[in-house]
Amino acid sequence: MRDEFRADLIQVNHLLVDMAEEARSAMRQATKALLHADQTEAEQVMLTDNEIDAVYHRIEERVYDLLARQAPVASDLRAVIMALRVADDLERMGDLAEHIAKIALRRRPAIAVPEELRPVIQEMAEVADRIAEKSVAVLSTSDIQRAGELEADDDQMDDLHRQLLAFMLGAAWRHGVEAAIDGALIGRYYERFADHAVNAGKQVVFLVTGEAATA
Amino acid sequence: MRDEFRADLIQVNHLLVDMAEEARSAMRQATKALLHADQTEAEQVMLTDNEIDAVYHRIEERVYDLLARQAPVASDLRAVIMALRVADDLERMGDLAEHIAKIALRRRPAIAVPEELRPVIQEMAEVADRIAEKSVAVLSTSDIQRAGELEADDDQMDDLHRQLLAFMLGAAWRHGVEAAIDGALIGRYYERFADHAVNAGKQVVFLVTGEAATA
Repeated sequence: MRDEFRADLIQVNHLLVDMAEEARSAMRQATKALLHADQTEAEQVMLTDNEIDAVYHRIEERVYDLLARQAPVASDLRAVIMALRVADDLERMGDLAEHIAKIALRRRPAIAVPEELRPVIQEMAEVADRIAEKSVAVLSTSDIQRAGELEADDDQMDDLHRQLLAFMLGAAWRHGVEAAIDGALIGRYYERFADHAVNAGKQVVFLVTGEAATA
Repeated sequence: MRDEFRADLIQVNHLLVDMAEEARSAMRQATKALLHADQTEAEQVMLTDNEIDAVYHRIEERVYDLLARQAPVASDLRAVIMALRVADDLERMGDLAEHIAKIALRRRPAIAVPEELRPVIQEMAEVADRIAEKSVAVLSTSDIQRAGELEADDDQMDDLHRQLLAFMLGAAWRHGVEAAIDGALIGRYYERFADHAVNAGKQVVFLVTGEAATA
């Protein structure tokens, strides 16, 4: 019974790692779509998001099946519930990548992001990718050390987000309202993507150490 | 044992209803803060959000305690997990109200929302409040019928959000970039608040009927 539970949980964890990798891919594709007005990449994001949703539903099914068959208790049960919460975060990450891809599509053939903004958006995308990569690693290996790096990465994301807003509000901005609205929403989507990835990592920490990260 | 479980679950449900009411209050206060540049209301939102977070932690503790003591299975266990997911949604609703209050504070003594935008923001706030009120009702009474109304309310929110964006992108807009960025983010916050409230309602439907609402 206990071995069977472990095997089930490992399978759920594999699905979570798959889902986290897909979420990371979705955002990489969304960034390419955004910075190059690339329709193919944008459409790929939608496909990847569909896959993420499919894995999400497989995780939910498997978790409910596992709960029904194995009736885990104590730390086993906590692990299962954490898996569901991580899946919630990863599912949202896919949605946020899709939001960015949709902005890219809406402005095609123009590039939604004016040239001066691209470096900061590119940096936000890199930080988002780094955070997503660490979340994959933390989910694969329960490496608490790497999870600990997530806070600092997230602070960097917040700094970049502030830079982005300051730039659009500065006297040098000459791209009008539409590009500013796009920029504000794009910034928000990268920031939330990072928040969810950090959250997924924190859940693993909670699972391993039993200590909740502060909300 | 079973009676004890029921009693525990009812207590968790009471806490969820409290939390949903607080989330609704937080957004009402945030709207007042926003539309009247009212510092007292804005500060009240922060206090209400702190209370929401406190109830959230009580729910988490109580749920983990309940799981450890009662080891529920099958539909009982599903009810407990749903409670946690609803709590996640309600916690985010408090955060979103706080985001709106922060914009209000940042622009004081000016009102962050230009006069022409206020009617549509007011309408978004009313729809958000109606959705939040229904979520409270659904959580209190498991009234599936009222939960069914949430989709239509949410569609109305999406329409208002589109109107808001169209207005800021129209030729008549003369409030510049800062007000447009604020408007875009405010719109996003009301929309997400509504999404989470609808989600909380759907969880209750899933619990009662066993059928998942489509994601």
